[in-house]
Amino acid sequence: VTRNWSTFGLDLYVEIDLAAGRRVGLERAMRAAVCDGRLAPGSRLPSTRALAAELGLARGTVSAAYDQLIAEGYLTARRGSGTAVADLPTQPSATAEPTPVDVTPQHDLRPGLPDVAAFPTAAWLRSTRRVLTTAPSGVYGTCDPQGRIELRTALAHYLGRTRGVAATPDRIVITSGFYQAIGLLAGVLCDTRTTVIAMEDPGHDLYRVVVRRAGLTVVPLPVDHRGARIHRLSGAEVGAVVVTPAHQYPTGAVLHPRRRHALRDWAWASGGLVIEDDYDGEYRYDRHSVGALQGLTPDHVAYLGTASKTLGPALRLGWMVLPPRLVGPVAEAKRHADLYTEALGQLILADLIATHGYDRHIRASRLRYRRRRDLLLARLGPGPDQPLPGMAVHGVAAGLHALITLPAGGPSEREVLTACTREGIGVRGLAELWHTRGEHPHGILVGYAAPTEHAYPAALDALASLLTNFDRETKRRPVI
Amino acid sequence: VTRNWSTFGLDLYVEIDLAAGRRVGLERAMRAAVCDGRLAPGSRLPSTRALAAELGLARGTVSAAYDQLIAEGYLTARRGSGTAVADLPTQPSATAEPTPVDVTPQHDLRPGLPDVAAFPTAAWLRSTRRVLTTAPSGVYGTCDPQGRIELRTALAHYLGRTRGVAATPDRIVITSGFYQAIGLLAGVLCDTRTTVIAMEDPGHDLYRVVVRRAGLTVVPLPVDHRGARIHRLSGAEVGAVVVTPAHQYPTGAVLHPRRRHALRDWAWASGGLVIEDDYDGEYRYDRHSVGALQGLTPDHVAYLGTASKTLGPALRLGWMVLPPRLVGPVAEAKRHADLYTEALGQLILADLIATHGYDRHIRASRLRYRRRRDLLLARLGPGPDQPLPGMAVHGVAAGLHALITLPAGGPSEREVLTACTREGIGVRGLAELWHTRGEHPHGILVGYAAPTEHAYPAALDALASLLTNFDRETKRRPVI
Repeated sequence: VTRNWSTFGLDLYVEIDLAAGRRVGLERAMRAAVCDGRLAPGSRLPSTRALAAELGLARGTVSAAYDQLIAEGYLTARRGSGTAVADLPTQPSATAEPTPVDVTPQHDLRPGLPDVAAFPTAAWLRSTRRVLTTAPSGVYGTCDPQGRIELRTALAHYLGRTRGVAATPDRIVITSGFYQAIGLLAGVLCDTRTTVIAMEDPGHDLYRVVVRRAGLTVVPLPVDHRGARIHRLSGAEVGAVVVTPAHQYPTGAVLHPRRRHALRDWAWASGGLVIEDDYDGEYRYDRHSVGALQGLTPDHVAYLGTASKTLGPALRLGWMVLPPRLVGPVAEAKRHADLYTEALGQLILADLIATHGYDRHIRASRLRYRRRRDLLLARLGPGPDQPLPGMAVHGVAAGLHALITLPAGGPSEREVLTACTREGIGVRGLAELWHTRGEHPHGILVGYAAPTEHAYPAALDALASLLTNFDRETKRRPVI
Repeated sequence: VTRNWSTFGLDLYVEIDLAAGRRVGLERAMRAAVCDGRLAPGSRLPSTRALAAELGLARGTVSAAYDQLIAEGYLTARRGSGTAVADLPTQPSATAEPTPVDVTPQHDLRPGLPDVAAFPTAAWLRSTRRVLTTAPSGVYGTCDPQGRIELRTALAHYLGRTRGVAATPDRIVITSGFYQAIGLLAGVLCDTRTTVIAMEDPGHDLYRVVVRRAGLTVVPLPVDHRGARIHRLSGAEVGAVVVTPAHQYPTGAVLHPRRRHALRDWAWASGGLVIEDDYDGEYRYDRHSVGALQGLTPDHVAYLGTASKTLGPALRLGWMVLPPRLVGPVAEAKRHADLYTEALGQLILADLIATHGYDRHIRASRLRYRRRRDLLLARLGPGPDQPLPGMAVHGVAAGLHALITLPAGGPSEREVLTACTREGIGVRGLAELWHTRGEHPHGILVGYAAPTEHAYPAALDALASLLTNFDRETKRRPVI
């Protein structure tokens, strides 16, 4: 219903939504008119009697609407001078600063992402139905900061069985993803005596940021083809170290058995904490999986895992298996961060693990990623057809990405990345993963999990032909 | 298959799970034996040839298993002296420090919790199915730190329509619950020039904790029957203030219109930020809802809401509607906390709002809670049957709880709480909600939403008879 009102110099087209009731409709219409400036600040309104007559409403309705809008501050009542529009600031424009958003590149070869098109929708939906129809209503209420016991129990079995982790449910804390886990842990370390933490160099740059924000000083732990160079820890005042023993990020190296022992010995001797980042431990192709370091010395290792690489980062489900002394402080830090992690996702994942749907999904993914890894090696690996002679592919025995180092005399990392951006190919550069700028090997990280099955070969072809072009250019350059 | 082996002084009952393959089965069996101490540290193992013969396995299988366990650190290979069990620390006992867990009391009258037995399971499941079957697979991948655009769009409409909030999707940040929202906001304020924040006294004690942890200094803002005493802000160096204008927590007072204006004027004059905690704005019984303060002056108010009181805290879904200048910094803080909030729950809630299932649920809840409120007034309100003459019931025009103040000369708050604990009645005391200890009115908060429909009358009866007993005792005391 639309009405017009033109009393006391005001001429206003008011759209009253009668479905919401006369009074509510009038209030909304007036709020809108005040907000968008049709009713200017300071304008005197008609008397309730006049407006009621004008609109064909009961006077009490108009009067109640005025009272409500006065209470909310849209109108002001001045003794002796009736009701007027309050002096409101201008309404928000749509110019709020936009935050940067990841845009999916045409050829998505970014590392660290699984193929979310393979998300096990049907299995997840079945587990959801089971959880929602069988769980007691208490599951919608409050939850232990450590996380739901159902998921902690399922994970204790699963991680013991598949990763050799010595886990009991009371040692596990569920977090809203891996990133929160490392942040909480860094905060707890900071609250205790730890000030210096060693992190692999090169290593995950975002984790350095979150650890520094918590207040710790980060020192680099160099990496070679046998993984982190553990002997560099001794002598330093390092209280904790973050490592990726199963598949070093980004080089893909496996921590050598002697270094595993050296790391354990370091923890025993110094009392320091080893933070084991098992980010893609589920994916091994050429040999049997390397069990978690945590199983060797569970009282000195915080084991961190995630569903982001198996199901998808959208679920925000991560977990820590902790030495007993850290469980209380970490759970307390979790409580102060966000009380506890969303519970339905926890229960659904617990059901998926218990009914072996999680295993089935990982097995199927492993086969698919292995084929993709093989295709990557065929297109980019050594051989007469290698796009850029001298380039090398590393770390492909496991995980979801390969490290490609660029040959001396060929294009620089910056040149390749610029060309990739131009061609809509999403890869990562190695440069920002080092702790410091300087003379480092040039390389790019190529993820082979993110694209859909049918988009992957084309993405690989696009990258290969881009690299081939660099080779042609190099050859075309006149030798001086 | 179980085998026994007793070579080289070792006598061991090994259970090999052949379903996992011979080698894997042998590895697991040996890991388990090392971990639980059946294979003691330092024990020499049989040669691969001997063990292979003993177990009827190929020598290569045993050899591969040994290599794997050496790599994992369970065994050590000593040149010239064969393979031995490594020196592992003892396994974790089940004595990890347990974290405190909320235990649901027999009569659950705790404030701040909805009736989770009324969770709209069928509607949630329908929305889940719609989301999982229609959403593009990208939803399982990464998400904007601000939250899914689907939920921000649905909330912008919903909050504008029901709470008079001036919201556009680009002003909204989705958080993992209300608690995280206030923590992130406090952190951002701390990063800018704000050092002092005013909070209602009495007010939510946990929020004071999280705000202090972020680094802000908290000053008390006194409360009376007209809500927060806003004039106390002027002159102070306060940079932000947290208020509950629609239904003050815990007193239930509605912020008086003059004070709403005074608060807006304070924000305009000082440039300070008003943090509007609209924790139970959906529930009003006796009069039309008071619109959000934010609608009055959106560039000076951060509006905070949650699904915890409408659907359940387990979902961990909260939202902020922010002045444009704060959107970027808050989204960045969110990114550093946990990247973004779990996305499936966001999409399901967006669907529930868009299909009006959320409105239907709230309307049904409002009716149910109103009946409960009426029953509470009938049992505990003024009248000849009031259990404890002189007690008063406050703040029942809205929300999910009532404040009951205890009469002078009657039992103390402590005495009532002790008796409640003894009788299994969950209520909250007023004492810890004050900023400082001292002479404060004694009272208890009685939530009427948490119990199931059929449990609620009995809970109320239990509380009423407990209070009646105090009255009898008082009367029985001899007058001296």
